[in-house]
Amino acid sequence: MIKPLSLLNQSITHNVMVELKGGRGYRGVLDGFDPHMNLVLKNAEELLNNESQRKVDLAIVRGDNVIYVSP
Amino acid sequence: MIKPLSLLNQSITHNVMVELKGGRGYRGVLDGFDPHMNLVLKNAEELLNNESQRKVDLAIVRGDNVIYVSP
Amino acid sequence: MIKPLSLLNQSITHNVMVELKGGRGYRGVLDGFDPHMNLVLKNAEELLNNESQRKVDLAIVRGDNVIYVSP
Amino acid sequence: MIKPLSLLNQSITHNVMVELKGGRGYRGVLDGFDPHMNLVLKNAEELLNNESQRKVDLAIVRGDNVIYVSP
Amino acid sequence: MIKPLSLLNQSITHNVMVELKGGRGYRGVLDGFDPHMNLVLKNAEELLNNESQRKVDLAIVRGDNVIYVSP
Amino acid sequence: MIKPLSLLNQSITHNVMVELKGGRGYRGVLDGFDPHMNLVLKNAEELLNNESQRKVDLAIVRGDNVIYVSP
Amino acid sequence: MIKPLSLLNQSITHNVMVELKGGRGYRGVLDGFDPHMNLVLKNAEELLNNESQRKVDLAIVRGDNVIYVSP
Repeated sequence: MIKPLSLLNQSITHNVMVELKGGRGYRGVLDGFDPHMNLVLKNAEELLNNESQRKVDLAIVRGDNVIYVSP
Repeated sequence: MIKPLSLLNQSITHNVMVELKGGRGYRGVLDGFDPHMNLVLKNAEELLNNESQRKVDLAIVRGDNVIYVSP
Repeated sequence: MIKPLSLLNQSITHNVMVELKGGRGYRGVLDGFDPHMNLVLKNAEELLNNESQRKVDLAIVRGDNVIYVSP
Repeated sequence: MIKPLSLLNQSITHNVMVELKGGRGYRGVLDGFDPHMNLVLKNAEELLNNESQRKVDLAIVRGDNVIYVSP
Repeated sequence: MIKPLSLLNQSITHNVMVELKGGRGYRGVLDGFDPHMNLVLKNAEELLNNESQRKVDLAIVRGDNVIYVSP
Repeated sequence: MIKPLSLLNQSITHNVMVELKGGRGYRGVLDGFDPHMNLVLKNAEELLNNESQRKVDLAIVRGDNVIYVSP
Repeated sequence: MIKPLSLLNQSITHNVMVELKGGRGYRGVLDGFDPHMNLVLKNAEELLNNESQRKVDLAIVRGDNVIYVSP
């Protein structure tokens, strides 16, 4: 058994897939988070309906948009 | 009588069906949770409108998307 | 006069009808709840727009989806 | 001047009209409430877009669905 | 400078216009409120998209529906 | 660096543009606020999709509708 | 590893891209924030569906609208 935030913590510096409400997603390196699931992503590719939109060096994602994070 | 979070706790390591808002679902092994119903799922199949989309080794699902968890 | 959560407590082991946002409903035995109105239902029939969808042995329903519970 | 929850308290055992989000309403006897405006209604008629749908002996309505209660 | 809740307090016994989410409005006498902006309105006219719908003697409006109150 | 609420405080008695969810806006004098970003506006013009709708002497806007305030 | 709010703090006085719910965005200098992710932006260009709408000298954005901030 592992707590959701502990798994996030183990995923730091690893590639994750993040799916947000509204068809948006990110694929990038998890560089940080907090208990609200606000996330810091590095070298991230932004996806809309699974199609690549752009690359961002850094993004702070507000947690209430997150559906899931897949390490 | 059983509290919802106690039943979640009893479901750890078991297969569960999770239904999310927006027609999305997961079938997989419950590996963790917290009081917000954030969930950790292992070996999960992602479903959209009951059709299989992909397999994910691990997923952290944010609790506010959950409609129900069926152990 | 009766508090909503006291009435839920009196309904434990009884059949209830639960209506959720988005046209979804459950008819089953109330087996547990907590102050957020997270619910545990047993031997429940899932309904979508009043049509039966499937039977589930157990379901943990997240409270923020609940419109009403009718004992 | 009267606090909203005090007026709810004075309305216990009286007929009220409750309007919910999504076009749903109830006309029935207010039998209980709590500070979240979760309500207990007795001998209630459920309405959808002002048309009667069914009678329920008892209903626990979750407060976040409430638009207004008219005593 | 005046705090929003202080202005509500000064508006007690006065006519106010209340606009709610979803095109609904009320014109009536403000008879009470609490810090969530739950409101008590007296002799209120209910409006839908600016058209009069009915008169209610008393209404308890749940604050999370409020867009604005105009004294 | 300036905190959002400090900037609101500096904007008291000044003209502000307020944009709300749902295409609604206000142009008027900021006369008050609280930590939820509930706002008091004076001599305000209400806009819907950038078109003027009416003038209001005073409006208490509930903060959860606010997208941004531009001093 | 860096906490989301620490990264926001490091981004003060730098250009950021802010994406909001509903297709709205801002490109400007981050001049402040608070723990709710309420933001102060300076010399900001407002975008709607990636098209420039107008320039604003200052804007206080309410945090609950934020999808992400990219420094």
